[in-house]
Amino acid sequence: MNKEEIIKKLINGELKLYQIDKITENAKDATDIRREFIETITDSKLDKIADYTLDMESANKKNIENSIGTIQIPIGVAGPLKINGAYANGDFYIPLATTEGALVASINRGSSAITSSGGVNTVLIDDKMTRAPVIKTNSAKEAINIKNWFENNFNRLKEIAESTTSHGKLLKIDPILIVGNLVFPRFVYSTGDSMGMNMVTIATEKVLDEFNKENSGHVVALSGNVCVDKKPAAINLIEGRGKTVTADIIIPEEIVKNKLKTTAKAIEEVNTYKNLIGSAISGSMAFNAHYANMIGAIFLATGQDEAHIAEGSLGITTAEDRDGDLYFSVNMNDLPIATIGGGTSVETAKEGLAILGINGTGDVKKFAEIVIATVLAGELSLLAALSAGHLARAHKELGRA
Amino acid sequence: MNKEEIIKKLINGELKLYQIDKITENAKDATDIRREFIETITDSKLDKIADYTLDMESANKKNIENSIGTIQIPIGVAGPLKINGAYANGDFYIPLATTEGALVASINRGSSAITSSGGVNTVLIDDKMTRAPVIKTNSAKEAINIKNWFENNFNRLKEIAESTTSHGKLLKIDPILIVGNLVFPRFVYSTGDSMGMNMVTIATEKVLDEFNKENSGHVVALSGNVCVDKKPAAINLIEGRGKTVTADIIIPEEIVKNKLKTTAKAIEEVNTYKNLIGSAISGSMAFNAHYANMIGAIFLATGQDEAHIAEGSLGITTAEDRDGDLYFSVNMNDLPIATIGGGTSVETAKEGLAILGINGTGDVKKFAEIVIATVLAGELSLLAALSAGHLARAHKELGRA
Amino acid sequence: MNKEEIIKKLINGELKLYQIDKITENAKDATDIRREFIETITDSKLDKIADYTLDMESANKKNIENSIGTIQIPIGVAGPLKINGAYANGDFYIPLATTEGALVASINRGSSAITSSGGVNTVLIDDKMTRAPVIKTNSAKEAINIKNWFENNFNRLKEIAESTTSHGKLLKIDPILIVGNLVFPRFVYSTGDSMGMNMVTIATEKVLDEFNKENSGHVVALSGNVCVDKKPAAINLIEGRGKTVTADIIIPEEIVKNKLKTTAKAIEEVNTYKNLIGSAISGSMAFNAHYANMIGAIFLATGQDEAHIAEGSLGITTAEDRDGDLYFSVNMNDLPIATIGGGTSVETAKEGLAILGINGTGDVKKFAEIVIATVLAGELSLLAALSAGHLARAHKELGRA
Amino acid sequence: MNKEEIIKKLINGELKLYQIDKITENAKDATDIRREFIETITDSKLDKIADYTLDMESANKKNIENSIGTIQIPIGVAGPLKINGAYANGDFYIPLATTEGALVASINRGSSAITSSGGVNTVLIDDKMTRAPVIKTNSAKEAINIKNWFENNFNRLKEIAESTTSHGKLLKIDPILIVGNLVFPRFVYSTGDSMGMNMVTIATEKVLDEFNKENSGHVVALSGNVCVDKKPAAINLIEGRGKTVTADIIIPEEIVKNKLKTTAKAIEEVNTYKNLIGSAISGSMAFNAHYANMIGAIFLATGQDEAHIAEGSLGITTAEDRDGDLYFSVNMNDLPIATIGGGTSVETAKEGLAILGINGTGDVKKFAEIVIATVLAGELSLLAALSAGHLARAHKELGRA
Repeated sequence: MNKEEIIKKLINGELKLYQIDKITENAKDATDIRREFIETITDSKLDKIADYTLDMESANKKNIENSIGTIQIPIGVAGPLKINGAYANGDFYIPLATTEGALVASINRGSSAITSSGGVNTVLIDDKMTRAPVIKTNSAKEAINIKNWFENNFNRLKEIAESTTSHGKLLKIDPILIVGNLVFPRFVYSTGDSMGMNMVTIATEKVLDEFNKENSGHVVALSGNVCVDKKPAAINLIEGRGKTVTADIIIPEEIVKNKLKTTAKAIEEVNTYKNLIGSAISGSMAFNAHYANMIGAIFLATGQDEAHIAEGSLGITTAEDRDGDLYFSVNMNDLPIATIGGGTSVETAKEGLAILGINGTGDVKKFAEIVIATVLAGELSLLAALSAGHLARAHKELGRA
Repeated sequence: MNKEEIIKKLINGELKLYQIDKITENAKDATDIRREFIETITDSKLDKIADYTLDMESANKKNIENSIGTIQIPIGVAGPLKINGAYANGDFYIPLATTEGALVASINRGSSAITSSGGVNTVLIDDKMTRAPVIKTNSAKEAINIKNWFENNFNRLKEIAESTTSHGKLLKIDPILIVGNLVFPRFVYSTGDSMGMNMVTIATEKVLDEFNKENSGHVVALSGNVCVDKKPAAINLIEGRGKTVTADIIIPEEIVKNKLKTTAKAIEEVNTYKNLIGSAISGSMAFNAHYANMIGAIFLATGQDEAHIAEGSLGITTAEDRDGDLYFSVNMNDLPIATIGGGTSVETAKEGLAILGINGTGDVKKFAEIVIATVLAGELSLLAALSAGHLARAHKELGRA
Repeated sequence: MNKEEIIKKLINGELKLYQIDKITENAKDATDIRREFIETITDSKLDKIADYTLDMESANKKNIENSIGTIQIPIGVAGPLKINGAYANGDFYIPLATTEGALVASINRGSSAITSSGGVNTVLIDDKMTRAPVIKTNSAKEAINIKNWFENNFNRLKEIAESTTSHGKLLKIDPILIVGNLVFPRFVYSTGDSMGMNMVTIATEKVLDEFNKENSGHVVALSGNVCVDKKPAAINLIEGRGKTVTADIIIPEEIVKNKLKTTAKAIEEVNTYKNLIGSAISGSMAFNAHYANMIGAIFLATGQDEAHIAEGSLGITTAEDRDGDLYFSVNMNDLPIATIGGGTSVETAKEGLAILGINGTGDVKKFAEIVIATVLAGELSLLAALSAGHLARAHKELGRA
Repeated sequence: MNKEEIIKKLINGELKLYQIDKITENAKDATDIRREFIETITDSKLDKIADYTLDMESANKKNIENSIGTIQIPIGVAGPLKINGAYANGDFYIPLATTEGALVASINRGSSAITSSGGVNTVLIDDKMTRAPVIKTNSAKEAINIKNWFENNFNRLKEIAESTTSHGKLLKIDPILIVGNLVFPRFVYSTGDSMGMNMVTIATEKVLDEFNKENSGHVVALSGNVCVDKKPAAINLIEGRGKTVTADIIIPEEIVKNKLKTTAKAIEEVNTYKNLIGSAISGSMAFNAHYANMIGAIFLATGQDEAHIAEGSLGITTAEDRDGDLYFSVNMNDLPIATIGGGTSVETAKEGLAILGINGTGDVKKFAEIVIATVLAGELSLLAALSAGHLARAHKELGRA
């Protein structure tokens, strides 16, 4: 069948979009035909989507179905950003993919203030990935029995889970929450350099096969929303999910004054009134100004799953005036990231990671520290800008008095 | 200065990254030099990032600073998806940019079930954008006076706000929350086809200038986190932000059975145990399975702000077994989107919108309906898959008994 | 039938507990018989429960069923507490019923600091009561129609609602939330001096009768948990429920030092780290130290509904070091109280209110200001105590260095 | 000094309220004088508050300061309530102190349905009490060190903690949350039959003394709101606090029909639409109808701390139509209760507990099961009543069609 014939059949409904892959020689051809079909049927021109360099053969295997090309998003860099971490150490240039004007410039300004101050300190506190099915049984008493079964058979279940993966380790099944006749066991794994959702899903499924052999309750869903994946949730903040990381710094008074054009006191005030009290009265789970901006831009630049930006908006910023110097920290307990697998294998993402000196395996902790350092740079910059305006207005008012 | 000289100065620290734009002829040259510098200093190869077709001149004006090229993310299509909305009406192919394998296929499967069932019904309930500064005064009594001032001068302030924009309308300043001596007035605007954050920020700033002339309290920050931008927050769900949209459908029993391989009862159960009860015990604000996946993929394909995925993960899914047929709905009260401005002007995003028959102004409500329809397609597909597994296990258990 | 016969029949199961009221002359006799029966069947001695002075005849009509006597809870007073409010003005002694040792003393200490500082300022910001049924219809489109119907017929519905009550006014039906085919209209009333739940329930029920005549959806429940009664909920904080009240004060440095044995800075720190950041990481909705203690004690002393303590634990405390003086505020947006109806008619509660100069109708706003002033007294006292310990430890550490 | 002189001095301000205890012979006299003073200065009559039988000598030592008498609240009983628990087994009459008319009757109706169905099953899942100070240090790195110190010295700290108490056991210090330079270690204890807040505070304080000897950070507050005491918080639901208890039951179709006048399907619907979806859109942490009512009434009848009603409003109700029978469960993870200490020593409270066969030590687990059974009785009754109305309306509508 040639291209025209295929498109005709697509239009007639004799072929489905996903069937093209089987009748073309390669992914690129299928991609081209699908795109032409879409152009025809929607009366659109898709020249830019057509013009890509990514290896579509590979992408079609791992990342996309019904491909028609690629999108492009501009990528800029902020830096140098000096980081003093256990894994990330030195000056970094941060790749940021975004279309929000001024964002890279703002992070860059924060980086400059940080680097002048001797660098940001980063600490990786915890590292894990979770999966929590929901199991239904007949009664609360049976639910308790199932909870006990998981606890009593942990070592055996750990072996079963780990038989499915070379990198993953089942750390614990905890908490195991019960609601009437429902049981939600939360499987907690370490997953090495991959983000780990696939790994933990497969491992947990295997454990559940074993569960099914010996228990009467049955698994309603492999994920019971206690994981909690791609959704904001208190359990992720309290128990941690993905990476738990903190970054902090002391910015000397002169840098606060000359580079950030504000005072430590003014930044502390903005943080307390906006990030703490403002978020409290809004019923928000995010006690910060804009973590999502930094997380979004660095995630896209490095091939992370864009839907995880939903989790990456959570965290608490603190600011303290220390006799004119500024103590400033950012804190994230729910940061799911990877340096291998998923979107990290896309060519431009690989290059984004390479800018950070990250080449696949062995560097995810370093990456976590770079991410939190970048979050601090952007958060500091915005709070400084807001408080500089605040200061300017305060002065104007004094002048008026 | 030639390229080599510039890069040398960058390495020596005599030039900053952002200064290159001023000494090169155009954005493309600056982009190339910056990238080469980054390659040199980080010892990386950025050939794929270098290979772009996007208009960097335009992007540098509107979307990015310190550009070094673009990233590419594969884009696929799901469809046809039949939508019966007030603004979106007909069969659509949905552009989806993602690197999460199986996502497009899953949305496609949902689309197929929907289209076979006669299409998804969409309703746009509300449409607005918000900005809420935090104002500090001396006491709660002064705070009340400021609240009253905003209420009493609304018509005048509306005029001032609207003088800054051709499309924006100030609908109300409500609620005006008070915490001790702090006031958080929430400015609510309609913003036409743009997402509107810039518009409402400028308009609100102008109103605050007027405020400053007549009141003693001063503005601590233009945003006091009651807006709430790019963060999950109850106030956005209760009051609405961006678009408030709902989609629902009845899937006939035979389609549930033959296409989705499950039953309405099984889907209802998974929804109740996972999306409602599971989210409740996790302290989650998102009572759904994976809205963030669909929001993420369609946002990237159409040039929306990636950081808004944080808001787009929120919403409630309902499912009801109606004598074997499935009633299914998805609900989002906090969906900030645009068809003009921001990232929508990037070439590939324009083409993504064109696939939907959207070409700039006049179509944002149609777009909102398409987005919520897509969310329903993906949510339905995942819940069906989970419940099909659930059914399979249930049958196995019965067989074993 | 004499007492012995009745008790015998109760033991045999020939009589039910609630049937006794019909065969005894008065509530007191029925109470005595029931109690004796309980003593017999549970082998307990209930002499103290038996020994009451409350008018059981009246209580049985309004407040209790199956009565067996009364409990006693000790009541103490804190004061004088100087209040500078719009409705409460002067020095008050606060009645507090509690069994938590040290609570009254602590509130008393706060009152003393307040009174020495010239009194606490109180502001009543809003006053209303809500009821929100859940209505089920066939589809989101019908749900929208119902939303529109409520909006379009507001004036008529207001008349209907207000025909059921001499004091209540239907202020608005807003928000009207939609989730798929479900509609949750939130009826907002002013209710005068009564707490108002009964009033708004009856009024709303009457409106729903009218609704049923003209619409196809039907009311699933008179309360759809959007009210939200006796449960902590963001909607109550954002929209307000019951009384919205604020109290604030400036405590001069010397009083902070000499009476509270601490500094403004230390109290500000404890408030930021404990009440703001601590509550944030706990996923708490209450950004305060112990509002529930003061609310509990004054509620019991004045006949409020004890279950409303659940709502009364919510609110935000702020503290600011103003050059050594302390600015301090407490804020409650969800305070359901009454001076007539419900438990306020019980004799000891009437006397508790009388201590405050409140005698039934006309004083609920004054009462609201007294309650919030009391909350400030207790909150200030605890934070001062915590921070005094903090200071002591800080000094010890310095001494050690 | 005689009474008149003392009152005169009180009026003149020469004496403070709390000083009276020292110059009178006993607590009763001091109570009388204070009350007369309050009567005089507030021009009120407090005859009923004066008329008590409680042992004021004892109350003044343990429960109250500045006493003026007692309040009375009517107490009724619901039952028999058949409970099939591990600790509570048999038919119980539940003492309920409330002024909300119809509440006891409603719980009684629920009890009747339960007992007819063979009784409610109760399960105690967990039992503990918590205290979480906030510690401030200089940096995140120091914060981590402190976290490690607590983990590495657990056994030693456990010994220290347990040296302060005969009943308490330090189970774990977990989680230890870090926010920048702040550390929030959550101390988790078992506390036997007492509610335990005092016990855990004293034990934790002792551990912190040891902490101070070996570490540079200092304790900002003994409670950092991660405990979380007397406030609604996700951490309490996820980790548990006080008792974690579940109760469930299957009500046969005929009892649902004849006693509750509704259907299992109708109750399931009300639960899903009101308790799950309604609470979700309200941003509520309580997915139930009115746990606070039952908790409030049984807490007051048995001498529990009234402020803990704030925690006792939290929990999830589930309902499932099982072929016409009703499966129903209530779930509480944050139930702080006691059978000794605090208000349980007040005479009427002791009698309230005696009705349940509880006489001090050894019965707190039994009490927990009784409380959760009572919650189920009241919750079932209200949902049945709401759904009966729902059914009636549905039938009327069908009739009209």
